[in-house]
Amino acid sequence: MKPIVSIIMGSTSDLPVIEKAAAFFDEMQIPFEMHALSAHRTPKEVEIFAAGAAERGIKVIIAAAGMAAHLPGVIAASTPIPVIGVPIKSSFDGMDALLAIVQMPPGIPVATVGVNAALNAAILAAQIIAVGDSVLAEKLIDYKTSLAQKIVKANQQLADVKYKFKTN
Amino acid sequence: MKPIVSIIMGSTSDLPVIEKAAAFFDEMQIPFEMHALSAHRTPKEVEIFAAGAAERGIKVIIAAAGMAAHLPGVIAASTPIPVIGVPIKSSFDGMDALLAIVQMPPGIPVATVGVNAALNAAILAAQIIAVGDSVLAEKLIDYKTSLAQKIVKANQQLADVKYKFKTN
Amino acid sequence: MKPIVSIIMGSTSDLPVIEKAAAFFDEMQIPFEMHALSAHRTPKEVEIFAAGAAERGIKVIIAAAGMAAHLPGVIAASTPIPVIGVPIKSSFDGMDALLAIVQMPPGIPVATVGVNAALNAAILAAQIIAVGDSVLAEKLIDYKTSLAQKIVKANQQLADVKYKFKTN
Amino acid sequence: MKPIVSIIMGSTSDLPVIEKAAAFFDEMQIPFEMHALSAHRTPKEVEIFAAGAAERGIKVIIAAAGMAAHLPGVIAASTPIPVIGVPIKSSFDGMDALLAIVQMPPGIPVATVGVNAALNAAILAAQIIAVGDSVLAEKLIDYKTSLAQKIVKANQQLADVKYKFKTN
Amino acid sequence: MKPIVSIIMGSTSDLPVIEKAAAFFDEMQIPFEMHALSAHRTPKEVEIFAAGAAERGIKVIIAAAGMAAHLPGVIAASTPIPVIGVPIKSSFDGMDALLAIVQMPPGIPVATVGVNAALNAAILAAQIIAVGDSVLAEKLIDYKTSLAQKIVKANQQLADVKYKFKTN
Amino acid sequence: MKPIVSIIMGSTSDLPVIEKAAAFFDEMQIPFEMHALSAHRTPKEVEIFAAGAAERGIKVIIAAAGMAAHLPGVIAASTPIPVIGVPIKSSFDGMDALLAIVQMPPGIPVATVGVNAALNAAILAAQIIAVGDSVLAEKLIDYKTSLAQKIVKANQQLADVKYKFKTN
Amino acid sequence: MKPIVSIIMGSTSDLPVIEKAAAFFDEMQIPFEMHALSAHRTPKEVEIFAAGAAERGIKVIIAAAGMAAHLPGVIAASTPIPVIGVPIKSSFDGMDALLAIVQMPPGIPVATVGVNAALNAAILAAQIIAVGDSVLAEKLIDYKTSLAQKIVKANQQLADVKYKFKTN
Amino acid sequence: MKPIVSIIMGSTSDLPVIEKAAAFFDEMQIPFEMHALSAHRTPKEVEIFAAGAAERGIKVIIAAAGMAAHLPGVIAASTPIPVIGVPIKSSFDGMDALLAIVQMPPGIPVATVGVNAALNAAILAAQIIAVGDSVLAEKLIDYKTSLAQKIVKANQQLADVKYKFKTN
Repeated sequence: MKPIVSIIMGSTSDLPVIEKAAAFFDEMQIPFEMHALSAHRTPKEVEIFAAGAAERGIKVIIAAAGMAAHLPGVIAASTPIPVIGVPIKSSFDGMDALLAIVQMPPGIPVATVGVNAALNAAILAAQIIAVGDSVLAEKLIDYKTSLAQKIVKANQQLADVKYKFKTN
Repeated sequence: MKPIVSIIMGSTSDLPVIEKAAAFFDEMQIPFEMHALSAHRTPKEVEIFAAGAAERGIKVIIAAAGMAAHLPGVIAASTPIPVIGVPIKSSFDGMDALLAIVQMPPGIPVATVGVNAALNAAILAAQIIAVGDSVLAEKLIDYKTSLAQKIVKANQQLADVKYKFKTN
Repeated sequence: MKPIVSIIMGSTSDLPVIEKAAAFFDEMQIPFEMHALSAHRTPKEVEIFAAGAAERGIKVIIAAAGMAAHLPGVIAASTPIPVIGVPIKSSFDGMDALLAIVQMPPGIPVATVGVNAALNAAILAAQIIAVGDSVLAEKLIDYKTSLAQKIVKANQQLADVKYKFKTN
Repeated sequence: MKPIVSIIMGSTSDLPVIEKAAAFFDEMQIPFEMHALSAHRTPKEVEIFAAGAAERGIKVIIAAAGMAAHLPGVIAASTPIPVIGVPIKSSFDGMDALLAIVQMPPGIPVATVGVNAALNAAILAAQIIAVGDSVLAEKLIDYKTSLAQKIVKANQQLADVKYKFKTN
Repeated sequence: MKPIVSIIMGSTSDLPVIEKAAAFFDEMQIPFEMHALSAHRTPKEVEIFAAGAAERGIKVIIAAAGMAAHLPGVIAASTPIPVIGVPIKSSFDGMDALLAIVQMPPGIPVATVGVNAALNAAILAAQIIAVGDSVLAEKLIDYKTSLAQKIVKANQQLADVKYKFKTN
Repeated sequence: MKPIVSIIMGSTSDLPVIEKAAAFFDEMQIPFEMHALSAHRTPKEVEIFAAGAAERGIKVIIAAAGMAAHLPGVIAASTPIPVIGVPIKSSFDGMDALLAIVQMPPGIPVATVGVNAALNAAILAAQIIAVGDSVLAEKLIDYKTSLAQKIVKANQQLADVKYKFKTN
Repeated sequence: MKPIVSIIMGSTSDLPVIEKAAAFFDEMQIPFEMHALSAHRTPKEVEIFAAGAAERGIKVIIAAAGMAAHLPGVIAASTPIPVIGVPIKSSFDGMDALLAIVQMPPGIPVATVGVNAALNAAILAAQIIAVGDSVLAEKLIDYKTSLAQKIVKANQQLADVKYKFKTN
Repeated sequence: MKPIVSIIMGSTSDLPVIEKAAAFFDEMQIPFEMHALSAHRTPKEVEIFAAGAAERGIKVIIAAAGMAAHLPGVIAASTPIPVIGVPIKSSFDGMDALLAIVQMPPGIPVATVGVNAALNAAILAAQIIAVGDSVLAEKLIDYKTSLAQKIVKANQQLADVKYKFKTN
């Protein structure tokens, strides 16, 4: 099965954050690939990857990077595919990476999610693919329902927390 | 022609920022609709809009809001469609809106673009639709080429700027 | 005894912060309820809760949330009851949650307290109820007096800390 | 008619911001008073004001201040009445005033609203009074409905904005 | 010996930071006193303290506080004596306390030092006293010389750190 | 009459901010001098100035600078006299200058006032001199009283501002 | 004469900021070239430019960019030549550009100067070239002397500013 | 062999950060020296060092400092040699040091690298020296190639990380 999502990280040290995205794609049965590429150390590889992604069948790219996080923007510069950027927290609570990803100039957007929010990046990627895939769309609705049910259960457990003047 | 993108703004005062998105959809011939809805003043209308968008054929939603910008996240909570959030600058240089949009909790992503970056939101929406529309994908590649050509022309004009020791 | 304050948290992981509010209500003998509700995962439940709170006799709502903290504002959008927002610290030292709660648009205020300041939220709730409850007002004055006495005692202990040139 | 809300400002230069609160109280027919008091230049007057407010029938105090905005907290230190703090923007986009108001220590909360958000302060004050005043509660519900209607009208006007591919 | 410097802290939990100031006064043989007073919990005691300090022979006051750190400014409001403010780090890396102390309105300055910089506050207090005390002025010059010598020694130790291409 | 305060600015473009300090010294009849010196362009002049200031009878130095504002700290490094630092706003709302002045390392304090707060710097300088000058101390108490009276007058004018439900 | 410095800007709208660098090179008689290149719109041109710069005799590159300012880092990724980055102010007071330029990952440094500091970038470039060019080194020393003389003159003019109690 | 690079640190506590620079110079066989000097505690030593560096054959200076990090700028003020500044993280995540180093006034640039980025400072120093040293230039190209190879290896290892739907 050919991958339709590509996860790119600037460094394998980002893997503990990124693996939530991988786990989600497993859960949703979305075939994906995973690469370590650096906008600064391997710029040509990044460009070759980005320029060839669409033709290889990739529909969405997730790129994660920290600090002066150029990777998502540099990939977006060389592909018409939607690129989702994940700011990795390593300094300034991730503010440097967030701004370096989200504040792209007119013409080359990066779909930015929260700091370290690899799971949300994967869900967003799935939502984008689901625009043209009604089976996946159904799965996503089920997934959101399961999230709601977790809150409902949490709420029920909360009902058992005892305080003297708590009344429910 | 039925709209496939919906642009939602929290206030019509955001229109001068938002209209760059509308102009882009005109240029790309992407049918769209435009609404003013407030997460706080018209919460039910927001929920009804969000819950029904997919069925009406909307494929991507762009939501713009300033300050404690809840609109994109609240819409994302009620639809499986990808939601693109545009932070509008009105205080703290737009940092409040940016954080209130991008820092969504796990499960409900918003694809965030830069502050006031309505054009980038529209391009991202087009890229998402183009995942399943090869004609649009071609147009987007042409659009990016035209952006590059503007820089090339700017560069040529720069060659005519004279300084004594400037050599090109 | 029917609850007159409702504490809502976006996630049960916020309970360690929130329980200072619960303990205060116990101390003040103010009947309260406690729920886990998510603005994004269970939006309808939030709206049903908010819309029905006044009729059930709730006089003040405390809502705690982190990151893009929409919960207090979304509740405030559906009830005329005063809503107190508690920004929970989970990223950016809680600045994201603070701005997402306090910077509400004109028309829908949230009474915001400091980051993780659940106790202050509870005291503020009690002060609001005490506007129409002179017995509670007396209790609050006693409570503030006890806070002052703690400082007075601390000051006395400080008098025993020895330095060579310390003179009191 | 005796005032039940007191608006305190650190400087009369804050009046252009504050007058939105006054206008709202006029609209809601809530009797109010207005004072200029400085936590730093007239500290005794502030304390006398705060200590006597409850007895004079004041139910809520709104205090607005900029920069190292101590006024709301200093008032809250001397009264059991709820104090609403309005950070006034004069430097750092109002961040100094916001933090100096919202980050109160445990025991002495200030109900903080957004930067320059005098109208929201007034609405919050009205909501607090309405806890024990069902007539005012009705007025507030009507007021919120009128806000929603403004958005609905704005939305209708938006329907008339023409773009080639706009479809509603 | 009567104290000529007064150290005030908002909470005894600040003592580990503050004690560097006390140790410095011991070293310089400057008689001092130390109090715990809260601008919010014991406002009257603060005012009585501040108003009487000059008459009791206090020449400089050091006030340390965290979060919405009003203590230094509130003391400065009630005394003509120079007040040195020490922002205590407890949230936002101490930025809230720094801004709440340094951004005083025109007329009531607080001499602010760095976050948790109790030693610098004490040195500054000594410098102020030394304006009229030439013996202390000499001691301070000696103290600064000793600081310089520490750096000189550190530099000498550094000369022994070996790297292959290090040449000094 | 020999000057006892020295005002140093990094650039004569800071004069419009600084002149509030000069006007205050005129009002208080405190003899002062004024220099433009740059920590970076004229480092030797700065050192010569700082090293000789005490001997020339200078009791307090006010140093104003913007951006990477090193001037106050560099002066403080070469004199035992108290140095008051005024952060000048020119970028980042003055945050760069504030941090570059206030965050001095242990041993070399700078008494920092608010951004552009030249008047407060002058008042603080006067307070420091007044530690050993009871006539000046009286003047400062009078000055503070006049500030309070301005607020009292402002308050009286406020009483004349008419709203329908305003009651004082 | 072949250029030895290359000035690259992300957009010709940066020219008003950049021209201070050009003027300085004219003054120092340093041959330079100037190009508009975009890391995102013309990524290949950027790479070709960067990869060939050394061979063409370029010794230092100055790259200016705003927002998510990737240009300096992307150039640095493809050349061994020192790259000086100038953050251009267009949003967040230039903080986004500053962080996106200075926070480069290990291995690929960018020599960052202040926001909009094109002149300093040019001086730094000249200093780098002067490492191997003693004639230029002399010119730079003269230039710094002229800067010092401006301050000296400003100081003299300041001596003529009259206040009643000003004594120099 | 005479040193051609000088590493200056404000405190030997910065050594764990700085030693990455030393290790790099060893690897590149660049002779260097290392000093502890304080802009505030040993200002004269700093000036003597800076003023004499060029004559002693130093070609680049690296200066590291934290908090109100004046050291790099103060050195740059007294030498025509390029100065590289390394902001050391000790408070505010290093933002105070970053701004105090990078925001230098016109005329005296400091080539700033990222927070704690001592390795990048060393690489930048090598790049500057390599402008006139083709052997070193070759070494730097090899070094960059080795960095790229690390990423390539990391990418290969990543290919072995197994997820159910991972396809490469």
